[in-house]
Amino acid sequence: MQLLPKGKKILALSGGVGGAKLALGLRHCLPPRQLTVVTNTADDFEHLGLSISPDLDTVMYTLAGMNDQERGWGLSGESWTNLAALEQLGGDTWFQLGDRDLATHLIRTQLRASGKNLAEVTAYLCRKLGVAVKVLPMSNDPVRTIVQTEKGEMGFQQYFVRERCEPKVSSFRFSGVESAAAHPEFLSLLRDDSLAGVVICPSNPFVSVEPMLALDGVRDALSNCHAPVIAVSPIVGGKAVKGPTAKMMQELSMPTNATAVAEYYRDILDGFVIDACDASEAQGIEAMGINTLVTPTVMQSLQDRIDLAEQVARYAVRLAQPDLVV
Amino acid sequence: MQLLPKGKKILALSGGVGGAKLALGLRHCLPPRQLTVVTNTADDFEHLGLSISPDLDTVMYTLAGMNDQERGWGLSGESWTNLAALEQLGGDTWFQLGDRDLATHLIRTQLRASGKNLAEVTAYLCRKLGVAVKVLPMSNDPVRTIVQTEKGEMGFQQYFVRERCEPKVSSFRFSGVESAAAHPEFLSLLRDDSLAGVVICPSNPFVSVEPMLALDGVRDALSNCHAPVIAVSPIVGGKAVKGPTAKMMQELSMPTNATAVAEYYRDILDGFVIDACDASEAQGIEAMGINTLVTPTVMQSLQDRIDLAEQVARYAVRLAQPDLVV
Repeated sequence: MQLLPKGKKILALSGGVGGAKLALGLRHCLPPRQLTVVTNTADDFEHLGLSISPDLDTVMYTLAGMNDQERGWGLSGESWTNLAALEQLGGDTWFQLGDRDLATHLIRTQLRASGKNLAEVTAYLCRKLGVAVKVLPMSNDPVRTIVQTEKGEMGFQQYFVRERCEPKVSSFRFSGVESAAAHPEFLSLLRDDSLAGVVICPSNPFVSVEPMLALDGVRDALSNCHAPVIAVSPIVGGKAVKGPTAKMMQELSMPTNATAVAEYYRDILDGFVIDACDASEAQGIEAMGINTLVTPTVMQSLQDRIDLAEQVARYAVRLAQPDLVV
Repeated sequence: MQLLPKGKKILALSGGVGGAKLALGLRHCLPPRQLTVVTNTADDFEHLGLSISPDLDTVMYTLAGMNDQERGWGLSGESWTNLAALEQLGGDTWFQLGDRDLATHLIRTQLRASGKNLAEVTAYLCRKLGVAVKVLPMSNDPVRTIVQTEKGEMGFQQYFVRERCEPKVSSFRFSGVESAAAHPEFLSLLRDDSLAGVVICPSNPFVSVEPMLALDGVRDALSNCHAPVIAVSPIVGGKAVKGPTAKMMQELSMPTNATAVAEYYRDILDGFVIDACDASEAQGIEAMGINTLVTPTVMQSLQDRIDLAEQVARYAVRLAQPDLVV
């Protein structure tokens, strides 16, 4: 039995590791043509002269089943010979590129230099890695998250990897976002009859999702979307399932709970998915006018990912028929 | 006992593997400050967006004791994980870059992009790898060997690696050589009182040595050099010790013997070193006005390299005192 009516699609918005888990779940419960994953590119950067797109790579590797689950990032079966040699030569090694991963960046850099845009490169890499789902960069134009911290401004990867998210943050800006165009298929899918729902994956709201929302036309298209827009809370039991979301919320003087995330997204949300352990917050979120689904959201096993994805897809179908929502 | 008088230097001109063997021998029998190795850069190329200098790397790795002697090229203890990943992604793999070697090219490309010239990058890499001898690129400007073959023109690495030297060659040209400047230290050392001798290593005369000679001012400086200019024959017993030299000589309708190499270099040579097995050619070469040293020249062991280097250095000293030459 299909989760979605024939010809209908889910658009998932994903950052890196946390979002990719739900994207993988969706990939397992939907046929490839019924899923498009738009991925944050504001944490892209240049390193050793290479064009690196960490979130795109995480989504792609995860959908290809090539991600390392124990380490939590990068490729499984990775080796680090090049990194050791770089270190001997005094090269930058704070951003760890594995020998296999490096091939992705070499190919991307080469194809970009030959004139291909980021979406074309991504499609090429996905084809080579056997990823049948459409993975789109949020934009073909460069957008770069700059983190304002107590130690001054720094690029996202410098903050995230080199500084291990330690400096206290005060704000973020997305350099280039004013002139960047959302990928045309991203915007058109938001307005297309085939759209059954938008799923904002449990990614960091400030640095993974916000850059996508900040692209011209995206927030409006989400606010006015004919299909339900659903977010899955990245905060469970007052903690971030992954990454610095909770720490950032504290530093931004926000309560570190699911409600604060719902509040952050309230202009665009139809539905919000919170973990069973946060059930007590449901009433308050509903009071903001956001329908709420309470369900286990922590994705440890593959089955957890599939179960949550199935719940979210069914939820989108239900929200699209408001009379049926209890 | 020192081979050279205090303050005197040997300038070695080297291509890749064959030349690097003698350079290593010279490194073992001379203090670092008494040896400068100028290296061919006309086989440099761009691959996967990386700046690759095969001869410079071979010389550098050899002097650092890091070269793979069994395989005959590249680094010892090399691994090939990146290459396998590149292949999966449909990348170019005909030029095999090992995981460790790749670090050299990443660093070189990054430093070049930051504005450092090739000599500065080479000095940096040598310092990091513990190479105390001065290794200089023949020029900081790009020169590229183009091989004219029966299958059309092709870049040197395409000919050498991708086509495995199989197409019959008819001529060579060195794209960019007219506007390239020999490295200033290369030219100035040729005119400097400290020069005790120039050693043209047993490298390919056409594609390893000729690009250096073709740089403006170099052939003149060698012809008029106050110090002896000595070449070691890359042809032994009618065969090339390494690489396509003999095959090229046949295709260029030259006899494949040491004499033909001496003839090729005759305008610049004071002395020529031929292998004991070619002793019968000595008289003919002497008849061209080129002093000849007959000695074992095939370098299998490290001791062979040191022995030949010592012979060549002593020969330079003898040739500089013509009255003493018997």
